[in-house]
Amino acid sequence: MAQASRVLSLVNEKWQLNLALEEALVGGAAIDATGTALPSETMALCEKADAILLGAVGGPKWDNLPPAERPEKAGLLAIRSKLDLFGNLRPALLYPQLADASSLKPELVAGLDILIVRELTGGIYFGQPRGIRELEGGERQGYNTYVYSESEIRRIGKVAFELARKRGGRLCSVDKANVLEVTMLWREVIQDMAKDYPDVELSHMYVDNAAMQLVRAPKQFDVMVTGNMFGDILSDAAAMLTGSIGMLPSASLDVNGKGMYEPCHGSAPDIAGQNKANPLATILSVAMMLRYSLNQAEAAQAIEDAVSRVLDRGLRTADIAAEGEAVVSTTEMGDAVIQEF
Amino acid sequence: MAQASRVLSLVNEKWQLNLALEEALVGGAAIDATGTALPSETMALCEKADAILLGAVGGPKWDNLPPAERPEKAGLLAIRSKLDLFGNLRPALLYPQLADASSLKPELVAGLDILIVRELTGGIYFGQPRGIRELEGGERQGYNTYVYSESEIRRIGKVAFELARKRGGRLCSVDKANVLEVTMLWREVIQDMAKDYPDVELSHMYVDNAAMQLVRAPKQFDVMVTGNMFGDILSDAAAMLTGSIGMLPSASLDVNGKGMYEPCHGSAPDIAGQNKANPLATILSVAMMLRYSLNQAEAAQAIEDAVSRVLDRGLRTADIAAEGEAVVSTTEMGDAVIQEF
Ligand SMILES: CC(C)[C@H](C(=O)O)[C@@H](O)C(=O)O
Ligand SMILES: CC(C)[C@H](C(=O)O)[C@@H](O)C(=O)O
Repeated sequence: MAQASRVLSLVNEKWQLNLALEEALVGGAAIDATGTALPSETMALCEKADAILLGAVGGPKWDNLPPAERPEKAGLLAIRSKLDLFGNLRPALLYPQLADASSLKPELVAGLDILIVRELTGGIYFGQPRGIRELEGGERQGYNTYVYSESEIRRIGKVAFELARKRGGRLCSVDKANVLEVTMLWREVIQDMAKDYPDVELSHMYVDNAAMQLVRAPKQFDVMVTGNMFGDILSDAAAMLTGSIGMLPSASLDVNGKGMYEPCHGSAPDIAGQNKANPLATILSVAMMLRYSLNQAEAAQAIEDAVSRVLDRGLRTADIAAEGEAVVSTTEMGDAVIQEF
Repeated sequence: MAQASRVLSLVNEKWQLNLALEEALVGGAAIDATGTALPSETMALCEKADAILLGAVGGPKWDNLPPAERPEKAGLLAIRSKLDLFGNLRPALLYPQLADASSLKPELVAGLDILIVRELTGGIYFGQPRGIRELEGGERQGYNTYVYSESEIRRIGKVAFELARKRGGRLCSVDKANVLEVTMLWREVIQDMAKDYPDVELSHMYVDNAAMQLVRAPKQFDVMVTGNMFGDILSDAAAMLTGSIGMLPSASLDVNGKGMYEPCHGSAPDIAGQNKANPLATILSVAMMLRYSLNQAEAAQAIEDAVSRVLDRGLRTADIAAEGEAVVSTTEMGDAVIQEF
């Protein structure tokens, strides 16, 4: 995050964007400082901001708190839900410079460019009723509810169809309509929307097959759209296919384009504070923020170009270094990006 | 299925097993012949059988039936549930002869041997309430319930711990305990069981991370245990990692070891009836059936050895042929296996 905010400040000055960057605590850091994962000052700042840049929030230190107080639920999921950031865009893009970093054979991933559109404020993540109850006889039972209404499906479907139209023109909707009623409705609604997008080629795929096809032949996909839970699983698998999950940003948008931006990766507690993490996913999240929420495509492009040149120059943090390649630190990578301006 | 039953008959004679093989319709074929996916005669045969060998049941021809009547729900899921076949074993095994068929780099999958233990008669597949209802205001909402009780979790946990003990001694339990209450209970129960298996090394992983790790470094896993939905997704991804999903059998067991055996792959409607499908997954399902339900390890081993020799001889159906390799038909592959006896 430190490197990303350096880049943001620089871009802010250079393009005279007049952005005011304010910082606030969330997740584990906020729990440590204030006792709660989402202090009201943080939420107030998020509400009035035009866009939010988020650092990953969890870690083993807070894993023994009651679930509802942990960084993930009380911090991350709470912001997503309160700000209605239902449209989660997760690119899985293979950087040509990092072609060798993928665990897949190069010919299967060369040029890979998938966009996963995940519904982010509904589905089983937020469905009620939920909990752990005691059954007659004394044993416990855990339960959650997977639920979507037509309007929720239409809302995310629209985001996906529009993006497919601007990209390769192909949309694959992922469900489990052979078993789950909620996804039968999903399929029906998405299918019904297709008539408004005659230029988009729509297909449907069961989630188990989608997971398989991502491993087998990922380049068959352009845009994929799915619910919260399936999107969580498939977007992580897809990102990992590129071998450069440390490179991938994500956006979570509300209906007006206000958004929260964060790397696809988590907080990586095993290397936190050691100046080893790859800052590029967060730096690229700044670019995505400039493009999608702040309407500054030129500045966004400049950041993306700088990152690409840094990769061309051979700079690699540990996560993206091939065997034997020299490794730079988080700050060195940040410095290198800044030098490109 | 035709090739598998030839192999079964041969083994039955050679080892004088005295097995009586009876055939019955299920799924699409049963709908066409009788109007229902699981005729009562079929169910009666399944109930009295010691083991069941199942051919995949679905296809586009029946996809427009009401969901509850389709081959998947009314046939496959109904048998699993009625016979309480809760323990689904899905190996993801790389045949050394097929090392090149994987989409992953050879060094990442050489020697891959994962066993996924999937809970098969509970979770969101069978949870109530479920359906599509009309909300006030007229829009529709789909809903399903993801539910597990302690005893259901213990029952499948036991299967997984026992198998881990007999294999590499490592068990990874997959959940989404940072979001879903039902899987918080799952994690707690599995964790609690660990004290009875001090010789098994237990770890827990979130499902999104598990999907990622399967792509990144699959050999880190020995046995994985998870619920019905996550197991469906992860087992397909894992099977595909081997590049030989046409080779992989599966078992679905009840508490007494009675089981249903089927290939991991589906009905492949695109090539059905063309004498192109790989019969080895179903033939290997016969071997698994002999081993797990019929206590005939020697005959089981003989089938597995025959398959291995056929691969050594270079016989390949289309799904497992490398570019330029000669391809044999379904019946030729069946003939080749039979010749090995
Ligand atoms: C941390 C966790 C709650 C979160 C999720 O499941 O949505 C994460 O995995 C993600 O994908 O952003
Ligand atoms: C056909 C379908 C209902 C089934 C499932 O989801 O269990 C299949 O995908 C499987 O994994 O056996």
